[in-house]
Amino acid sequence: MISFSIEKNSSECSGRTGVLRTRRGEIQTPIFMPVGTHGVVKTLSPKELSDVGARIILANTYHLFLRPGLSTLDHFGGLHRMMSWNGPILTDSGGFQAFSLKAINSISDSGIKFVSHLDGSSYELTPEESMRIQRTIGSEIIMCLDECTDYPATEEEARTAMLRSVNWAQRCRNDHPPNRNEQALFGIIQGSTNLNLRFESLERTLPIGFEGLAIGGLSVGEPKEEMIEILDQIVEKIPSHLPRYLMGVGTPKDLFMGIERGIDMFDCVMPTRIARHGSVYTQRGRIDITASRFKNCTEPLDSKCFCYACQTFSRGYLRHLFQNKEMLGMRMASLHNLAFMLNLTNRIRKALNEGKFLGFKKDFFEEYDSKEGVYARS
Amino acid sequence: MISFSIEKNSSECSGRTGVLRTRRGEIQTPIFMPVGTHGVVKTLSPKELSDVGARIILANTYHLFLRPGLSTLDHFGGLHRMMSWNGPILTDSGGFQAFSLKAINSISDSGIKFVSHLDGSSYELTPEESMRIQRTIGSEIIMCLDECTDYPATEEEARTAMLRSVNWAQRCRNDHPPNRNEQALFGIIQGSTNLNLRFESLERTLPIGFEGLAIGGLSVGEPKEEMIEILDQIVEKIPSHLPRYLMGVGTPKDLFMGIERGIDMFDCVMPTRIARHGSVYTQRGRIDITASRFKNCTEPLDSKCFCYACQTFSRGYLRHLFQNKEMLGMRMASLHNLAFMLNLTNRIRKALNEGKFLGFKKDFFEEYDSKEGVYARS
Repeated sequence: MISFSIEKNSSECSGRTGVLRTRRGEIQTPIFMPVGTHGVVKTLSPKELSDVGARIILANTYHLFLRPGLSTLDHFGGLHRMMSWNGPILTDSGGFQAFSLKAINSISDSGIKFVSHLDGSSYELTPEESMRIQRTIGSEIIMCLDECTDYPATEEEARTAMLRSVNWAQRCRNDHPPNRNEQALFGIIQGSTNLNLRFESLERTLPIGFEGLAIGGLSVGEPKEEMIEILDQIVEKIPSHLPRYLMGVGTPKDLFMGIERGIDMFDCVMPTRIARHGSVYTQRGRIDITASRFKNCTEPLDSKCFCYACQTFSRGYLRHLFQNKEMLGMRMASLHNLAFMLNLTNRIRKALNEGKFLGFKKDFFEEYDSKEGVYARS
Repeated sequence: MISFSIEKNSSECSGRTGVLRTRRGEIQTPIFMPVGTHGVVKTLSPKELSDVGARIILANTYHLFLRPGLSTLDHFGGLHRMMSWNGPILTDSGGFQAFSLKAINSISDSGIKFVSHLDGSSYELTPEESMRIQRTIGSEIIMCLDECTDYPATEEEARTAMLRSVNWAQRCRNDHPPNRNEQALFGIIQGSTNLNLRFESLERTLPIGFEGLAIGGLSVGEPKEEMIEILDQIVEKIPSHLPRYLMGVGTPKDLFMGIERGIDMFDCVMPTRIARHGSVYTQRGRIDITASRFKNCTEPLDSKCFCYACQTFSRGYLRHLFQNKEMLGMRMASLHNLAFMLNLTNRIRKALNEGKFLGFKKDFFEEYDSKEGVYARS
């Protein structure tokens, strides 16, 4: 089982720090969770994840169910042992992946019928099946099956999906009562960008009783202001003793935005995905390391960063690796971007604990927004 | 400059152990040199190379000349600093790459005219230009420009190329006298599979005076017996005080074959190239880790291996990574294959020092050839 305790509530904003205790170790919150879709955070080893400060990673139920499949996961005694990651793991329910991979055949109250994007074979993912898969994976935190809506969605679509998600949440809880397998179950608030539906989702989900609550269905294409409005209205209504998880969100800006509003947990593929294309975070903004201006640059990606890439290689060499499509470039950019996100989370946590969040935020963005970033800021 | 001293001559065969001293450290011979074509051993970091016991790596002059180019290499103070590899480097002359990439426009006594495989621009690689490029790269051991022949070659083709290589060897030596930049210069014996031409090449090359001698133009498609015959006849005629380098050769079998005949240095892309396709060396032969029989295998690649991959992951998980085209799989297979080759070289060296080479060879192949390898043995 997990337990969560608040360490400090900010007097400057709704942010807080805390400790999430799991059978595989403690997690200081707020926390960013690197995404390991197929049971591997792309390009990186478990040792490298530890080295950059990852304390919990996310894995995808949909992908792991299809490959390696439950019998292999069971044979290995779960994902931790198979992938040699000894820290906590959070798994999603599988629904969002089926949704985003356009693999869904039909959705009914029963569950989600989908075809494998690998071989076209058919499956039905019910709330009970999602629980069973996640128990086999053996993650410390498992998520309720929910129905996501596209953005934009009509009110009716959003309401139908939200009510179905509430129904599935109850079935997940029934199938996975508290303490089963020492795995915590988190509920998910849906309702698209409709504030009333979001309130209703929260009101209906809370009484079911979960070990944590997530906000799903955001960062799916809606304007950032709409996400912020929902967080402004919803997060403070989640009882403060529950860990709050904002799903699929996690650029440097998003971290500040969410933490300031009381979010404790984030996950996002962005840091590693953009890294594989040569886009890296620095204190002075996001840069494209493949740009010709870095050809002879002997500076590290980020002079303040502690990661192996920054301690070892220059921008010029990393650019050379990308020019030659050498995997070491993608590895190093991925390592660095995770180091950046995890270090940033640490620094925000420290600022919250010291009552200096707003000052830290101001200082951070003064540097991050003003200097050498070449992209639209994110 | 380098110096080479024999440690022990085997009483069982022509093999010997020695120490090659360079400004960047000592190398125990025989040695296998991992290949870092673009200034990176594919998928691996310098730290990982050190961890698996690499003591000297090879880099390719042709590729580095085109990218990042001499001005960038010069700006970084040479390849070692650019790629953060502090150990010795050996560079080839650039000729073989132009040859194997079919980039050559014309070859004359002047040099090799080639077009870049990247952008079609034209260059001439003369012996003097090859020396200049290799001085800019800054490798500890640089190679003479030579002309390789296809296999099979007519006697006339082979003789013309051999004589031209001798001429170029003299020009390289003139341009790069002993001790210049503390870089050693190795000559290269050519002559295709024609034994008389090989003898003539050796006779003409030796008096020029080099710090080491390489045997080039083998492992280009000829039957293994022909390579062996040439080594049987040629190697013992190379003065024993010179380090002897068999270019482009290096499977586990080749290591024994060459060392037994008095070769001190090997390089080959094979261990890392086959690794990226899931083919790995084990004590019990080469296996294809993508095979379905490894799906639920909880054993490491090689139970006797000390590398991170074997200490951390199972065959089943590595297969899963390859199934999902996850780079970590290619990384770990590359790391392991190099660990295997370097560890094997160490064990052969130890056997030579202890006067037990033939017994070790017999024991090794009893296991390597008999068990689970699924490929033609190599």
